[in-house]
Amino acid sequence: MVRGRTTAPAGLTLGHEITGEVIETGRDVEFIKEGDLVSVPFNIACGRCRNCKERHTGVCENVNRERPGAAYGYVDMGGWHGGQADYAVVPYADFNLLKFPADRDTVMEKLPDLAMLSDIFPTGYHGAHTAGVTTGSTVYVAGAGPVGLACATACLLLGAAVVIVGDMNERRLEQARGFGCETIDLSEHGDVGAQIEQILGVPEVDAAVDCVGFEARGQGHEGAGTEQPATVLNTLMDVARPAAGLGIPGLYVTGDPGASDENAKEGQLGLRIGLGWAKSQYFVTGQCPVMTYNRQLMMAILYDRVQIARNVNASVIPLEQAPQGYAEFDRGAARKYILDPHGMVGAAA
Amino acid sequence: MVRGRTTAPAGLTLGHEITGEVIETGRDVEFIKEGDLVSVPFNIACGRCRNCKERHTGVCENVNRERPGAAYGYVDMGGWHGGQADYAVVPYADFNLLKFPADRDTVMEKLPDLAMLSDIFPTGYHGAHTAGVTTGSTVYVAGAGPVGLACATACLLLGAAVVIVGDMNERRLEQARGFGCETIDLSEHGDVGAQIEQILGVPEVDAAVDCVGFEARGQGHEGAGTEQPATVLNTLMDVARPAAGLGIPGLYVTGDPGASDENAKEGQLGLRIGLGWAKSQYFVTGQCPVMTYNRQLMMAILYDRVQIARNVNASVIPLEQAPQGYAEFDRGAARKYILDPHGMVGAAA
Amino acid sequence: MVRGRTTAPAGLTLGHEITGEVIETGRDVEFIKEGDLVSVPFNIACGRCRNCKERHTGVCENVNRERPGAAYGYVDMGGWHGGQADYAVVPYADFNLLKFPADRDTVMEKLPDLAMLSDIFPTGYHGAHTAGVTTGSTVYVAGAGPVGLACATACLLLGAAVVIVGDMNERRLEQARGFGCETIDLSEHGDVGAQIEQILGVPEVDAAVDCVGFEARGQGHEGAGTEQPATVLNTLMDVARPAAGLGIPGLYVTGDPGASDENAKEGQLGLRIGLGWAKSQYFVTGQCPVMTYNRQLMMAILYDRVQIARNVNASVIPLEQAPQGYAEFDRGAARKYILDPHGMVGAAA
Amino acid sequence: MVRGRTTAPAGLTLGHEITGEVIETGRDVEFIKEGDLVSVPFNIACGRCRNCKERHTGVCENVNRERPGAAYGYVDMGGWHGGQADYAVVPYADFNLLKFPADRDTVMEKLPDLAMLSDIFPTGYHGAHTAGVTTGSTVYVAGAGPVGLACATACLLLGAAVVIVGDMNERRLEQARGFGCETIDLSEHGDVGAQIEQILGVPEVDAAVDCVGFEARGQGHEGAGTEQPATVLNTLMDVARPAAGLGIPGLYVTGDPGASDENAKEGQLGLRIGLGWAKSQYFVTGQCPVMTYNRQLMMAILYDRVQIARNVNASVIPLEQAPQGYAEFDRGAARKYILDPHGMVGAAA
Repeated sequence: MVRGRTTAPAGLTLGHEITGEVIETGRDVEFIKEGDLVSVPFNIACGRCRNCKERHTGVCENVNRERPGAAYGYVDMGGWHGGQADYAVVPYADFNLLKFPADRDTVMEKLPDLAMLSDIFPTGYHGAHTAGVTTGSTVYVAGAGPVGLACATACLLLGAAVVIVGDMNERRLEQARGFGCETIDLSEHGDVGAQIEQILGVPEVDAAVDCVGFEARGQGHEGAGTEQPATVLNTLMDVARPAAGLGIPGLYVTGDPGASDENAKEGQLGLRIGLGWAKSQYFVTGQCPVMTYNRQLMMAILYDRVQIARNVNASVIPLEQAPQGYAEFDRGAARKYILDPHGMVGAAA
Repeated sequence: MVRGRTTAPAGLTLGHEITGEVIETGRDVEFIKEGDLVSVPFNIACGRCRNCKERHTGVCENVNRERPGAAYGYVDMGGWHGGQADYAVVPYADFNLLKFPADRDTVMEKLPDLAMLSDIFPTGYHGAHTAGVTTGSTVYVAGAGPVGLACATACLLLGAAVVIVGDMNERRLEQARGFGCETIDLSEHGDVGAQIEQILGVPEVDAAVDCVGFEARGQGHEGAGTEQPATVLNTLMDVARPAAGLGIPGLYVTGDPGASDENAKEGQLGLRIGLGWAKSQYFVTGQCPVMTYNRQLMMAILYDRVQIARNVNASVIPLEQAPQGYAEFDRGAARKYILDPHGMVGAAA
Repeated sequence: MVRGRTTAPAGLTLGHEITGEVIETGRDVEFIKEGDLVSVPFNIACGRCRNCKERHTGVCENVNRERPGAAYGYVDMGGWHGGQADYAVVPYADFNLLKFPADRDTVMEKLPDLAMLSDIFPTGYHGAHTAGVTTGSTVYVAGAGPVGLACATACLLLGAAVVIVGDMNERRLEQARGFGCETIDLSEHGDVGAQIEQILGVPEVDAAVDCVGFEARGQGHEGAGTEQPATVLNTLMDVARPAAGLGIPGLYVTGDPGASDENAKEGQLGLRIGLGWAKSQYFVTGQCPVMTYNRQLMMAILYDRVQIARNVNASVIPLEQAPQGYAEFDRGAARKYILDPHGMVGAAA
Repeated sequence: MVRGRTTAPAGLTLGHEITGEVIETGRDVEFIKEGDLVSVPFNIACGRCRNCKERHTGVCENVNRERPGAAYGYVDMGGWHGGQADYAVVPYADFNLLKFPADRDTVMEKLPDLAMLSDIFPTGYHGAHTAGVTTGSTVYVAGAGPVGLACATACLLLGAAVVIVGDMNERRLEQARGFGCETIDLSEHGDVGAQIEQILGVPEVDAAVDCVGFEARGQGHEGAGTEQPATVLNTLMDVARPAAGLGIPGLYVTGDPGASDENAKEGQLGLRIGLGWAKSQYFVTGQCPVMTYNRQLMMAILYDRVQIARNVNASVIPLEQAPQGYAEFDRGAARKYILDPHGMVGAAA
């Protein structure tokens, strides 16, 4: 939306990642109380349809008239207002909200970490988990943006032996190395398998995760700069071993008016499915159903088992500085900005 | 190979589906004995590499020099001789062979059913299982060839509520209806979702299986006749519901010299991955690891819980009539031919 | 309760299995409408606590003050009124109710089948599913009461090759044979393994399900008649093969004042856990979380894939005849009584 | 065996945990080579029977005439000679052995860690994994012997938020605290739930693992000293939350001639199964199938993701000092002794 690639009408409040304090509850809310400190999963869900009952809260049937699945701050995801604001409304609060069980001081101290529970930490974890990352895995994570760094963090939390992160932004790669990842600079190297071989001794990984999506660019000296939306998926098929899983939390869209070719405009990409098939790979796509993971990731944060805010370089800024935050992020800052409308976090950044 | 689409040098014995009697055992064979009646999984596996130990026998690392995975009768799958012959050699026999536990008469009576255990029944079952087909599912199976019919049979065995089979060959669709499936004639109808809605009341199914692969043709009056290798996968994404699984036992290749366009020649197809992503679907590709399923399917056959030979219209012919069998199958016969080199099955057909 | 083994105060309406028509909806109910025909899972669940979100609706944290888990008509399961009445109240209706999607005539015709969705069919299925019953399994089901017969039905629906049911009531065993099960008369035979060997050729099964629970009696000529609450579990460990699963939907209680020995009064039984351990078996206990299974079993019923009413011999009687129904069931009738307070089913029995 | 509780005839070489160098290969060994440094899973397995093909290598059907399952150095587990010797023989070497992929120096440096792969590390991991331990879990591990410490290590590797270890041996508890566990001194406290509440704020954990088995003693001031073989399992049911899993790698036997009561002599224990049932818990018993886990745990060791040797306090001693090692261990030393017959590890301890 920031780059005009998806639509957002004037007046729509942006912001699908929300954390905060409950100041008022609706008629039907029985268990969430005023004063509770809570995380809001970015996917809005009713908790009553078949998909929600089956834990697929990312494709709830009741909160978006056009198609299953909704999120705060998107016109095509139900039209719900977002959270880059002083206050936000959360429907079905008993179902959607995750209450932080700790005392207020502890929560405030961990707030930059806990704020990652509304989207990027579960999303990165979902990518790793669905790719089959587990104890001792070798993993390739495509992308070192906030989701990629959260995914790399999740891989390590899941016990991966080696996590290799690829990106074209050296500052972001440096951030990944800072917490124990290996990295590949994709602006230098087009042959990811060869780089993996340098690190592991074999040109393959046990699992691979796409944290980039359809806005991918070509890799190596030749490809760099040009948009090549199928590059990441084709690379993952190439470097993942036989029977491997590919987690695909990176966004692919049904329509992309700004795409460079006709097929991509309709979300149709040239995939080397024959290669994936020959290797018996599997692919898991889609929005992360945040509620499936957020409670357990909160526990890992509260008991100091993971430093997600540090790893994604979370930086708290006032709501008024949001425009600068967007601009810096768009210029490639290795930061995850947290907007703090009421100045609650204080010196926590 | 029959249509010259993949290579087979003169002198290579074809035939990856083998069932028979053990007439001689090698030095290392301890548990399989002369006289045992056995099924041979089409994937050759060593039983000793990482992939075999993890049950991924379709991508064994030790039996094909070029890449993981081997099968009888393919030059690029290890170069092993096939079973359309009087005798065949099976390596790692203790690991690979499934011994039929019943007496000889019972086995002979069920042989046309048991012969389906070397490939198509497990392959169809794998497609259904990996797509998540279970009790009460609604399923769309693309293709009514032998694998498609075996898959439809597997869906019913797994407890599916409704199995809808699509194909362009009316005789094969009739065969599917004969054992309880609904059908869609794809030569008449290009809009599969609309046809599904006529049957189910909704234009979606819980799970979908691709039993066609890269040799797909366009659907409906306009598409029919032209080769459109991505048609089936794109249709499945369209008709499968959110969070559904797509089982893809249908073959996709890394290279197809006979393809109609440059991308398809390299196994690269135009897939609507954006649509699948928006619906949070997952995709499972590759050869079926037969050993994962053949014992339990054998039990279902021996205890009369499934009529796979009847459902795929298994027809026993002498080895010498193989050329006619190939010709008739290529003309679209709704039959699965079984070659009987030693005339053991007799009147069983 | 009927036999005075558990407590029920005067005035408590019994009846945890409820099916019916919605005649009024509460303030918060958005998706269920007046006139809907619905099934009510016997476990009451809020849909908002951790356990409900994780699909463990049998141990909901919010609907019973004393401990997780509630059901209609039990004083110690939350004190909710039951459904053996003209009308019943269902809390959290959007979450708890399963709406039948078919037209009224179809539903009425299938009502004796659909009525089994509130408890025994999902409960029997849960026992089979958690024991690992799947295509081709050999299974021993202990108990031929309504849950045992529902479990045997579920095993066949799951594709089991052979289902062997053991009981001491010949009429109930006859009922089991009527839909394709093998049977063992436990009043005649104490050695279940030997009987299984007569049927299968080996004294072991792939999976075993306890549909009896703590009110078990001794088996064979010697044991019969005496209460031996650990008999069933110890028998299952004996006849299940190595690595097998034991599904245990049969009820075991934390206190049984009527038990014959001091340990059993506290729910402590003498189990041969050493035997189970040596065989690497696993055990799954507890109430069935009905909502996990009821939608898919409903689909199997609506599409005629299973005849659960016939298999458990469902018999519709007016509410006023409930006392006779209880008396006949207690005398061992091979029937599942359905009380019809408003005479809606009519001649359907 | 050391305490005369199980039988071992004179002349049987003990030792089921073996790590070493291949000095000779048998006729059928194709992939393992002389000079390979390898880990030997303690369960001997053929790799060719149904159970091995299904990954249940702890209950292999072909290597023990009396019942499924074998191990080195036990007369009732197949009678195979053990590894507390200068040399050992491993059958089915291609299947059983795990080759260390690193160079000799790296392996030698990590040998005290890698030596834990033949039993206790996978066994502890199996207990944690089957209990459902995952990211953010709270866990109670009963027992701080080598398996208990390995299990606690595995819980942390799996991402557990809090790991609480209970034992009566203060030195072993200190060892557990040394790598981040909370501890409960069971010689002081009989009420484990109350102690857990002090640590977590609630008297329950998400998962529980029994690393003690049938040689359990009573807990608290009253129970201590007396043998109470069901204590651990009953405690786990008490402190594990609803729907929790109980991993039971601790040994339970089919016969225990030295037991204090008649039932226990036959492996029959008084279990509060009613309590477990009311909480819908599940129980996973039996030997760990080492091959299911050893490769991935090896990777975690080789890439420095876990310090198993440090955590269990591995101490290398010459083979000749084995008697002293046994004596010290029996006196409660918080050590895991590694016997080094050829002095290969050198100063690595």
